[in-house]
Amino acid sequence: MARNIQSLERAAAMLRLLAGGERRLGLSDVASSLGLAKGTAHGILRTLQAEGFVEQDPASGRYQLGAELLRLGNSYLDVHELRARALVWTDDLARSSGESVYVGVLHQQGVLIMHHVFRPDDSRQVLEVGAMQPLHSTALGKVLSAYDPVAHTEAVESVREAFTPRTVTAQDGFEGVLDLIRARGWGSDVEETWEGVASVAAPIHDRRRMPVGAVGVTGAVERVCQDGEVRPELVAAVRDCARAVSRDLGAGRF
Amino acid sequence: MARNIQSLERAAAMLRLLAGGERRLGLSDVASSLGLAKGTAHGILRTLQAEGFVEQDPASGRYQLGAELLRLGNSYLDVHELRARALVWTDDLARSSGESVYVGVLHQQGVLIMHHVFRPDDSRQVLEVGAMQPLHSTALGKVLSAYDPVAHTEAVESVREAFTPRTVTAQDGFEGVLDLIRARGWGSDVEETWEGVASVAAPIHDRRRMPVGAVGVTGAVERVCQDGEVRPELVAAVRDCARAVSRDLGAGRF
Repeated sequence: MARNIQSLERAAAMLRLLAGGERRLGLSDVASSLGLAKGTAHGILRTLQAEGFVEQDPASGRYQLGAELLRLGNSYLDVHELRARALVWTDDLARSSGESVYVGVLHQQGVLIMHHVFRPDDSRQVLEVGAMQPLHSTALGKVLSAYDPVAHTEAVESVREAFTPRTVTAQDGFEGVLDLIRARGWGSDVEETWEGVASVAAPIHDRRRMPVGAVGVTGAVERVCQDGEVRPELVAAVRDCARAVSRDLGAGRF
Repeated sequence: MARNIQSLERAAAMLRLLAGGERRLGLSDVASSLGLAKGTAHGILRTLQAEGFVEQDPASGRYQLGAELLRLGNSYLDVHELRARALVWTDDLARSSGESVYVGVLHQQGVLIMHHVFRPDDSRQVLEVGAMQPLHSTALGKVLSAYDPVAHTEAVESVREAFTPRTVTAQDGFEGVLDLIRARGWGSDVEETWEGVASVAAPIHDRRRMPVGAVGVTGAVERVCQDGEVRPELVAAVRDCARAVSRDLGAGRF
């Protein structure tokens, strides 16, 4: 098998470095973080800058991610069939549930939010398209882990951080949660990721019956739950939405 | 001066190719479009795929942009000071104007939308963060061309397409429009890009008094204009917003 191209792998590592933690780094920081000679790192950064993937602050000389990534990320969304099919159905779900709606897909070791419909009120909300959520504690992540074998492996092999006292971190407990999700066809997160926040999600399948993503609603635990359980009408609305998107993607009805 | 890294330049060209036009391409299409041998193109595509920048459709074998671009594009937004400073002020502008608000920056030969606040009503709207607008016909683009010398060069040297009968395409006319924008401190687009749509924009400056972007409102020409002119209260609201963001970025008051 042919080897991958080293300069490309290094360039990708630089972009990941600039996407996390400090986010504005000098040449020395970049070089030492990646174990590269300064000259090597500079050649890659200069090329990334010429292509718009990296920008250099004129005052400090530090590097940060570039605008071309935003343009390409938007093009990725445009071409993605799941998002296109989900647009109308998720709008309806936000309207009927009164909560914010998210569509997520497995990406690396987490859930990548590829669509987000704001809660239909006048409150100030921050768009989370492109953000990542943990696999083991969120409703979207647990649903993906229950239905997608690759997501399952990622969730099982990762360190399951306890974000709140309610996060299920033990291996046995986690597998039990996934069994329940598969038995019921939906998953929930009641203050397991964020205090005061609950969510419910269901899987989306494509024409080959493959789990390609999940859709869910998220909101204040006081609104989403009743007596500690997710409100049944919310579960029904989320599952209706997931079925509608799946059918639009070509999945069979049965 | 050292040369840039060829494999990186080729990888960037592939991503640009997949971001435009067809968007799902086979190996032969990619290789022939970029004038590369198939083996060379395959090595780059395979590495891009391993890094998540490219995905391959399992059924057709065709390549498309990958999810990692969305994640990195979102990180770009997170780190960008202009967007962070603009969040609150643009929400206020959308509320007071009743129209959608856009913040744009110069990117390549156009305006990259880096923030978009929906019109505050219940209508279905598509988020345009990451989308590009033309420099020569939109209010954002003309304001950038008037204040940023690099944007001016791009706008002057580009082919100025006539999107509607009202688009100003001639060199003299275009320079006259920019002179007026500089004299008044704001620019408009009354059905010069889209029939029935008008917008008004003003420049955002940073602490070094450099033009770093523009903010504007866009809406139906019937609402934005009165007797063929942009409504003065909208102009005032947009300029207030641009000044507020500029001050937040450290620009002086005078």
